[in-house]
Amino acid sequence: MARMVRASQADSDAGHESGTRNSWLQCTRGCGGRYSIYDVVYGCPQCGGLLDVQHDFEALKDRNADGWRSLFDERTRSVEGPYASGVWSKKEWVCPQLGSENVITLGEGNTPLLRASRLERELGLGRLWIKLCGNSHTGSFKDLGMTVLVSVVRQMIADGREIRAVACASTGDTSAALSAYCAAAGIPAIVLLPRGKVSTAQLAQPIANGALVLALDTDFDGCMRIVEELTSDPTLYLANSKNPLRIEGQKTVAIEMVQQLGWKVPDWIVVPSGNLGNVSALGKGLVMMKELGLIDQLPRLACAQVERANPLYLSYLTDFEEYDPVQAQPTLASAIQIGNPVSYERAVRTLRQLDGVVEQASEDELANAAAQADRTGFYCCPQTGAALAVLSKLRQQGQIGPSDKVVVISTAHGLKFTRFKVGYHGGELEDVVALHANRPVELPPRYEVVLEAIDEWLRGHIAST
Amino acid sequence: MARMVRASQADSDAGHESGTRNSWLQCTRGCGGRYSIYDVVYGCPQCGGLLDVQHDFEALKDRNADGWRSLFDERTRSVEGPYASGVWSKKEWVCPQLGSENVITLGEGNTPLLRASRLERELGLGRLWIKLCGNSHTGSFKDLGMTVLVSVVRQMIADGREIRAVACASTGDTSAALSAYCAAAGIPAIVLLPRGKVSTAQLAQPIANGALVLALDTDFDGCMRIVEELTSDPTLYLANSKNPLRIEGQKTVAIEMVQQLGWKVPDWIVVPSGNLGNVSALGKGLVMMKELGLIDQLPRLACAQVERANPLYLSYLTDFEEYDPVQAQPTLASAIQIGNPVSYERAVRTLRQLDGVVEQASEDELANAAAQADRTGFYCCPQTGAALAVLSKLRQQGQIGPSDKVVVISTAHGLKFTRFKVGYHGGELEDVVALHANRPVELPPRYEVVLEAIDEWLRGHIAST
Repeated sequence: MARMVRASQADSDAGHESGTRNSWLQCTRGCGGRYSIYDVVYGCPQCGGLLDVQHDFEALKDRNADGWRSLFDERTRSVEGPYASGVWSKKEWVCPQLGSENVITLGEGNTPLLRASRLERELGLGRLWIKLCGNSHTGSFKDLGMTVLVSVVRQMIADGREIRAVACASTGDTSAALSAYCAAAGIPAIVLLPRGKVSTAQLAQPIANGALVLALDTDFDGCMRIVEELTSDPTLYLANSKNPLRIEGQKTVAIEMVQQLGWKVPDWIVVPSGNLGNVSALGKGLVMMKELGLIDQLPRLACAQVERANPLYLSYLTDFEEYDPVQAQPTLASAIQIGNPVSYERAVRTLRQLDGVVEQASEDELANAAAQADRTGFYCCPQTGAALAVLSKLRQQGQIGPSDKVVVISTAHGLKFTRFKVGYHGGELEDVVALHANRPVELPPRYEVVLEAIDEWLRGHIAST
Repeated sequence: MARMVRASQADSDAGHESGTRNSWLQCTRGCGGRYSIYDVVYGCPQCGGLLDVQHDFEALKDRNADGWRSLFDERTRSVEGPYASGVWSKKEWVCPQLGSENVITLGEGNTPLLRASRLERELGLGRLWIKLCGNSHTGSFKDLGMTVLVSVVRQMIADGREIRAVACASTGDTSAALSAYCAAAGIPAIVLLPRGKVSTAQLAQPIANGALVLALDTDFDGCMRIVEELTSDPTLYLANSKNPLRIEGQKTVAIEMVQQLGWKVPDWIVVPSGNLGNVSALGKGLVMMKELGLIDQLPRLACAQVERANPLYLSYLTDFEEYDPVQAQPTLASAIQIGNPVSYERAVRTLRQLDGVVEQASEDELANAAAQADRTGFYCCPQTGAALAVLSKLRQQGQIGPSDKVVVISTAHGLKFTRFKVGYHGGELEDVVALHANRPVELPPRYEVVLEAIDEWLRGHIAST
């Protein structure tokens, strides 16, 4: 099914705009063999391990670091076409051989890197920024990877390959992103999910975007098994995180963040960690920038897990000598409720490259950390809450210092987690003592009564600040 | 309370960075008198009419059109500080005299202007873009105006004026934006809303951002009356749309959109129309660009109302000779359910300047128009649905031609309207025949059964396209 090709052949097979630059698929574990990014192959045919996208660094070095910085800066002014996207403005580093006419963009990337001035004072940090990846079309960072995957599929179809549909098993953000990008491209999307375990709110996005949504009488792993069986048919293309194309888009978060800091790296990056694709993507973008001279040092990385789904944390305690998947327990941070992360090996490599640490947060800690940030103007998803809780712990432990500059990756928009917010402030979350709870005050519609309530609240407000 | 000042005096009173540029408050109806933007004054002290912010155009002409275009283009590359905001990158045109250190930004503006290729073919248009103002911090265009209002309040406080809190009556997006910006600034926010008429989802944002949320036993108008009474105390500042400062931020949508089109205007702009502040803001930005030479013609404007709240439409039918507020009926497009729009006079002026039209959409039309767009990759709020329905009507009537270039303003993120989406696809919306409804398919977890369902769906998919 997968043809083994030389890099140059992969390129000329495709026959699109490419210059001398190229990318290809290669085994993460170092088995030989290269496969075209247009091949329908999801694992190493030799060892069964994961595949990575590799780039021709020699070809990328035909432009020096200043040249790349200037090019990327120039493109942030783009108004239409692929370069107006935060992902495709880095096209040569992401997917050089893709024909620009096949790019499917929904304006992904270019999200705010917001200085959190009030929170940085409360936590005792030098500088704190929050990278708001959830301010996006479908409301999560998944858009960044899905634009690449769906664009590659469109290229394959344009090249005459029969792809009838793109499929994934997902309970949340991945299915939303897949459905939106496929709808924009006019490519059928199929989403498999466990019946009765997904809320109507989570269903609403793929339903609205016209995907075929299959609710199966099984759990998530059961859906995964069936989607893998389905996609052994090469006309049904697999969009799950095993597919390495998505990491190519997600790695632009690292590049964009450094660019927003004036091509300087922070001391630390803190990232919510579940399936570990995002961790790997951050590392890949940073190492690529160092390799090509755009930055001269790497930041340190802190992976934030939740206690209820912590296989990476447990492995970290053994210096990654031992690793066992766990049975993930239900957690408020549902997007990282993963006991057997697909990108474990990729993430360990990244943690070693970036002198990384792993820490975990309890339900109570993540909920209160999110609420504390909300009080300073944010609207954090529970995964971002886990990252902020871990940041606070590492600061208290002294791992992160009082003058350190830190970026926290916020992976989704809080609007996707209304029940989490309502539950927290209503005091209804199990195992959470809501330290920052706020409640509406019910009053009769009389000026004097309202004014008295306001005066009382303002007195309390002044006393507490 | 309000001091009448000369423009230059307003400026020197404030004593901040200003150059020779200035802005001030002035009666919309042409009464004499100028007031500082830092005065606590919400209506013309002479006639009781609305106030507008006016700018010193002579001072702005010290830079020519090319100079302004270059400056604004250059600033879109800004990485930190006020100019990284889509609003504050146009600071000289928005609020020139504000000290940059008092700008409260949450990364507002710089939202995607997304080409809707599939939808433009379905509707038979030359070009169609959707300006996604909802891809923002609080999920609606209200952020654009609120950053200006809260920054001005912060400046007033820095200048020694006592402002104890900022207050508004709102059931939705305005209270979310006010609460977030005040939380970022550390300024107390107060939100008044009718008890029992607001969903917990709508409450979640101001609650999370730490506002004092007062639920009163009355309707929206009752809340409005009390907040106006409260803000007769000058230490409680009014954030409702009567306050003209918000229009200054919202007008940057027009500038940003034209900039994204390479400083060209579309043939038409279609905008959901309720309280009419947004209509006025768009007109203000466009006229300002024409006055200062950045564009040489104005686009036409189509205001989209809903049948259940259509006072502007009824007035338009009389060429604006008659105008009567209506009793707005409940509509899916809840954000424009307004029977007596605050900015009616401002909007009529804009419609005359832009050779505008007004059209209305039924519940059925707006819901189906939103769903049709969703099928092509969008996730439209019901207000955007109303705008798309009106676009479709005007195209069918021939008002908008087959080669016209059109921008539709999308005012909020669909994630704020999960119940609308779920209701539509569940066939539960009154007065709506859901033409594009999609449903999950429940199946046993067996490969053969799933494959058969996929094959059947794909056959139908091919047949329908």
